[in-house]
This record gives sequence, C-alpha cells and structure tokens, in this order.
Amino acid sequence: GWVRSVRSQKEVLFLHINDGSSLESLQVVADPSLETRDLTFGSAVEVQGKLVKSPHRMQNMELKAETIRVVGPCDVWSFPLKMKERHPLEYIRQFPHLRCRSNTLSSLLRVRSEATAAIHSFFKENGYVHIHTPIITSNDCEGAGELFKIEVSLAGESREKDHFFDVPAFLTVSGQLHLEVMAGAFTHVFTFGPTFRAENSQSRRHLAEFYMVEAELSFTESLQDITQVMEDLLKTATSTVLSKCPHDVELFHKYVAPAQKVTNATGKCCNPFMLISYSEAVEILKQAAQTFTFKPEWGCDLQTEHEKYLVKHCGEVPLFVINYPYDLKPFYMRDNEDGPQHTVAAVDLLVPGIGELCGGSLREERLHFIESRLQRYLDLRKFGSVPHGGFGMGFERYLQYLLGVDNIKDVIPFPRFSHSCLL
Amino acid sequence: GWVRSVRSQKEVLFLHINDGSSLESLQVVADPSLETRDLTFGSAVEVQGKLVKSPHRMQNMELKAETIRVVGPCDVWSFPLKMKERHPLEYIRQFPHLRCRSNTLSSLLRVRSEATAAIHSFFKENGYVHIHTPIITSNDCEGAGELFKIEVSLAGESREKDHFFDVPAFLTVSGQLHLEVMAGAFTHVFTFGPTFRAENSQSRRHLAEFYMVEAELSFTESLQDITQVMEDLLKTATSTVLSKCPHDVELFHKYVAPAQKVTNATGKCCNPFMLISYSEAVEILKQAAQTFTFKPEWGCDLQTEHEKYLVKHCGEVPLFVINYPYDLKPFYMRDNEDGPQHTVAAVDLLVPGIGELCGGSLREERLHFIESRLQRYLDLRKFGSVPHGGFGMGFERYLQYLLGVDNIKDVIPFPRFSHSCLL
Repeated sequence: GWVRSVRSQKEVLFLHINDGSSLESLQVVADPSLETRDLTFGSAVEVQGKLVKSPHRMQNMELKAETIRVVGPCDVWSFPLKMKERHPLEYIRQFPHLRCRSNTLSSLLRVRSEATAAIHSFFKENGYVHIHTPIITSNDCEGAGELFKIEVSLAGESREKDHFFDVPAFLTVSGQLHLEVMAGAFTHVFTFGPTFRAENSQSRRHLAEFYMVEAELSFTESLQDITQVMEDLLKTATSTVLSKCPHDVELFHKYVAPAQKVTNATGKCCNPFMLISYSEAVEILKQAAQTFTFKPEWGCDLQTEHEKYLVKHCGEVPLFVINYPYDLKPFYMRDNEDGPQHTVAAVDLLVPGIGELCGGSLREERLHFIESRLQRYLDLRKFGSVPHGGFGMGFERYLQYLLGVDNIKDVIPFPRFSHSCLL
Repeated sequence: GWVRSVRSQKEVLFLHINDGSSLESLQVVADPSLETRDLTFGSAVEVQGKLVKSPHRMQNMELKAETIRVVGPCDVWSFPLKMKERHPLEYIRQFPHLRCRSNTLSSLLRVRSEATAAIHSFFKENGYVHIHTPIITSNDCEGAGELFKIEVSLAGESREKDHFFDVPAFLTVSGQLHLEVMAGAFTHVFTFGPTFRAENSQSRRHLAEFYMVEAELSFTESLQDITQVMEDLLKTATSTVLSKCPHDVELFHKYVAPAQKVTNATGKCCNPFMLISYSEAVEILKQAAQTFTFKPEWGCDLQTEHEKYLVKHCGEVPLFVINYPYDLKPFYMRDNEDGPQHTVAAVDLLVPGIGELCGGSLREERLHFIESRLQRYLDLRKFGSVPHGGFGMGFERYLQYLLGVDNIKDVIPFPRFSHSCLL
C-alpha cells in the first residue's frame, strides 16, 4: 500500500498504510531500525509481518512488521498532497492524475463504484435486459442542448466533406430512442452509459460528459409504474451504498457537505416519496409567501427556485411532479387528452439540494398521434406497438445528492467541461 | 408479449407469446371465438387467463385464455420479419430498429446482457474498484489506429479554430492510461466501456465503436498474475453465461456458428489455458509443415495465420503468448532486460476462431526507463510508484468467440462502421 503517515518514536516506528480498499489504513508497528530515508508519506511499500490484535482502541488489528521494502519512493517536496492535511476539493481538482490519492476522492470513487454496481444489480434482479446504447449516433434525441460532432482526423486534418459514416454523426445526448427500439422486444430494458452536451457552461451543475441511467418499460399504461421504479431504484441504490461504504459516506457528510444537506439522502432514505401534479405545484407556488424571480404561471417551466420551494414545502423529501403542460414537452410524450389545461404524462423527480434528478414519461404509442414524425419511430408503432414509458437519471447528480457535493466536477473521475479536458 | 405464432383450429386457437425474457414462448390456448383480425404474427397482446399444467410434451405450462386484447396490431405485409422463418443475419442487419424482434438477435442481446453482468460481478467479487474512464480525451493512447476528433456543432457549422476544450479532443481508444492513474490509489481497478477506432474498414472484424474490458493491478511483479486474472475472468464469464442462458447459446451453436466452431468456448471452457513464449511460438512456426504468406521470423509481429496455427498446434484451447520483442511494443511495457533477443513483459491471449482476444503487459514502473516521456505519466512514477500490470479484452470478440458469430456487427446492438451509422 501507500504510506499515509510515519511517526517515529524512540522505541517504535508507527506507519499507516492504505491500499485503497477502504478509508481505514492499516497500522504498522516496527522496530525503528527498519526506518529508511525513502520511507516517507506517499511512498509505496511492501511490508511483511504478523497481523495481531491491536492493544489500541483506534483499531482492531495491526501489523507487526518484520521487513519493510519501499517499492516506489515519493518526492514529498514536489508531491502536491501533504501528510494529514485536508486539502479543499478545488485544490486537488488541479491534479487529475493524483487526486485519487486523497481521502476524499478515493472515498468518492469507492462510493461511485458501489453505486454503479448497485444500479446494475437492481435492474438485473428486476428482470431488465442491459443494452449498450450507441455513443455515436446520427440522431439528435430531443434537441437537448448542443451536440458534439465527430470528424475523422487524418494526419491532423479534418475532412469536413467526406463523412466517415456518410452522414453527420454526433455524440449521444440520450439512449432513449435506442431503448425504445429494444422495448419492442423486451418488456424491461435499461442502459447506463456516458452522454454528452456541448454546453458552454462553467457552472457547478454541468459537465460535457456525464453518465445517465435510463430505463424503458413496456406494457405500462400508468405513470405510477414509472415512478415506482424510480423510487425503488433510488432507495435500493442508496441503502446499498450506505451499508457497503458507511465511512466513505460519513466523510462527505462530516467534512464536505454543506451542513444543511447532511441528512438529505441518508436520514430520510426510506421515507415514501411525495407526489403532486404540475397544476397543484403551480397552485402551491402561487400561494407562497415568498416572491420568486420568475412568477409561477400555468404553462411555464418550473425554475430551480420553484423546485427548491416545492421540495421544502413538502418536507425536504424527494418529490414527483407529474402531468406537465403539453406545449412544454417533446413530441414523444403521451397525450393525456385532458383540457382545457392540456397535459402529457410526464414526470420529474425533484430532490433536496439538487432539484431535478430524474425525468420520465409515458411514451405516445398511438400511431395517429405522431404520424408526421420519423419513419423508424413510426415503424416501431406499426409492428406490435405497446404502451410504454421510461425515465432517465443523472448519475453524477445522484452522487451529489447522496454525498452533498456542491460541484459536479468532484463526483466524476475525469471531468470534461468547456475549456478543460485534462488527460 | 408479442405473438410469435397463431394456429387456428376448429375447436381451439393456439398462440405463442414471447415477452423477451427468454427464447421460449408461452403457449396460449383459447376458444376460437377470441380470434380477431388484428391477432396476427408480430402484434402485441395482453392475455388474461389461468396458467395450467400443459398436457403437451413441448412445454410444462400453458395459459388458458379468458380474454385476449390486441394492444398493438402489426401490419404483417410490411413487417420485414416473417412467421416461423429463420432470417439470415445479413437480412435482419438491414433493420436495426426491428432485428431485436428476431429469435437470433434477442438471444444475442440476452447473452450480451448476462455477459456484461458476469464481468461486472467477477471484478466486484475480486475487490476491484470500477472506474468510468473518460470517453473524450486529449491523449492518444498508443497511436492505435485512427482517431475520431470532436468538434462543437454550432448551428450546423463546426468552429475549427475555437476548440470547445481549448485543446484538440478525441474519442478514447483505450482507458489504460486513466486506469494507471487509478492504480496509484487502488490496488485493483477495472473499466468496461466504449472505445473507438476510425479505421476505414468494412471487415467482419472491426467496428468504429466497440466495448473493452480493461483491468489494472498494482503490486504485481509477474506476468502470471495478469494471465491468471484473464483466465479466471474468461472462465467465470463463460460458465455464468452458459448456466444462465443455455438455450440462447444453443441457438447460436445450432443455427449460426460454422460447424467447426461449435464447442470452442463451451465444450472446453474449463480446460486450463496453454502458455508459450513468443520465442517458442516462432520456433513452432518455423518447424511447421505449413507454408505461411508471412515467413515467421524472430522480431516480426505474429499474423492472424500464425495465431491460428499456434492455437491449432496447442489443441484448440485458449493460448497465452508472452514476452514479445522490445521493438514491437509501446514504451510503457516493462523491459525484461534480457538479451540478445530483447523482450518486454507483454502477453496476448489467442483463442480458437478469433485470434487475439486480450492483450496485456506489466507496465514499466521504473522512472529512469521512461524519463523522456509525458510529464503526467512521469509524475505517476515519482510519487509512490508500484510495479503494476494490466490487460484489455475486446468484449465483442469475446461474444463472437463464445457464440461462434462470424461478423462482429451481429454481436452489438447498434453497429457503427465506416459508411454506416444507422439510428
């Protein structure tokens, strides 16, 4: 492992060694004669000895060293991480190749790995087929944000006219349309992969490359089928992470999360989620004592200030808002055929501290409702069309919610955003 | 589910309904009065009734229908799949949005989903941290093939000079360098994601977008640690898939795989793999009765004809070839410091019918051996460097090997290759 601390006393040498498997380090007790110049903070060592019960309260076990070999020394003067210092996230973000050596980022990466596994398991145990939806696509799912275009680089020059794929190709913004294809053959499908937005934003909330969990369910005629899966997914993933890496989560709640966020995900993770309609939401906002920058009005999109108020109003638990105005949503969402306030069967899940975490809808399965659209999208409706629906969840937003991390760049191993693509 | 067959007799109506959960369909037995014009091959139906023990040998259970509702009719004349026909893979490849409705592709997608889950589980159970290595990168890992370049598309025009990331950015060809970063903080890491090559090839062996499983192990000083993980991974994944979807695999071996391939992966999946050195391989090739297009010579790369001969020579089992010539391999592979035939600690895994399935190496951890390289790559060696190694496996090649599928386009949901990016 790597040396996290060296404490040399007259009669005994104490080391703490970490191998990345948990936040805890192993205490090594050695004879001072085993100390060498190379044995510093950050160096990689191989220690041989006996694992014994520790006499100290702080740990159960410790290693009585017989040999210590420094397999990789560490130049402590130029190493940007310092012993026993709690470096701010902004500081370590400058060192994309070394920040995983800090406690904070290694905890984050373990939580991210556990959450990834928990999400895969959740879907597998519920009979979903996993689909690798494509990264390169000739579609633009819903005109969501700006697209990255792909060109072949031949000897450093891009051949603008001579498309590699014969058609313009882009990085995907969502796997939904490809999942809908698969929902014509399997009743439950999901994907969990990278998606891309070329938004020229330096905000704490946006990345150019981020991960989405998306699911599609066939033979589903009610939004409640969709919200139930979202709720189960979130609760299962959260309780798995909490039971698998309690210390890693605790580190964030103790030292990283703004105080008010601490118990958002964890303290209330088993409470039932709340559900209101968009129309009820607008009424709540209209009756609020608070004045908003954007006046709440039926037919207008909910702003972040509105979403935060609604979550607070409902007791700081995750909140589903369903049945949005027809004119606000894309063509593929299912028409509720209501009126005069015409809505579609769409749902957003709002969570404390973050706002929108998931978005979903019933899909319009009726051919005559979308007849003027894409040929292939129509084909899917022509040959054994079924009522279906689905949703997407931003994985980084989920991690921010779970851990109370303010900046999205700190919950992904190698953040990409405008003006930055390090490594 | 979707109707796979309709057989109307005088006194009874038989349907076979498939919901994608397995190759097997459910037999529905109904009164002929329940038949409607819409109830055709390919239509989506909801059937209510009693699940009873079947009197027929072909199945255990059948559904005695009380009601049958066609929720999505299917225009059988324009639907490109026909009842009870076994369409060739080349034919269904023309319908990327409908081919998942065929038996062959739905079996493939279930196998792919199971194999994905098995690979994730294997690494998790062995203590690996899962890392989402980035898709967009400013690196070119080993100058492997041609790169896709990324441009921002603003109102249809690409802004050549004004890079979104301030630097030229590309689609990744390998997550190795990013995994090596992580191997400086965790002793075992893996990634499983899309990688890209802009090779202008129409071959059965290449895709522009394909999936790689990559792992990196720290504190590893012997190639045998690496080959052991490769062997365990392959055997575990294969036996999991065989036990979870035996019928899906059987379909491929019966109707799709060329006869000679049938038992490659499955019949011998628990035999120990073989291991020879590159130098031994060259000797075997030199003594072969067969004449090769490329004359085998120490210092030259092994060609596909050589690899196939070697696998055959060793009894058609997976074969590791280790210790390749220094001059053939990239800078980061560990120098064996031998001579006069100078080699590095590299390994390729060759499998019957496919050739190279995995490639790996010990990495050069010694600073002075690679001093003239990348600054960040050097930093990783400066601060607690450890002996480490890793490998990558082409996931589509694994599926081809497992199922005996000739064309790589048939083992990925939405194939991308030169001149083709459908959907």
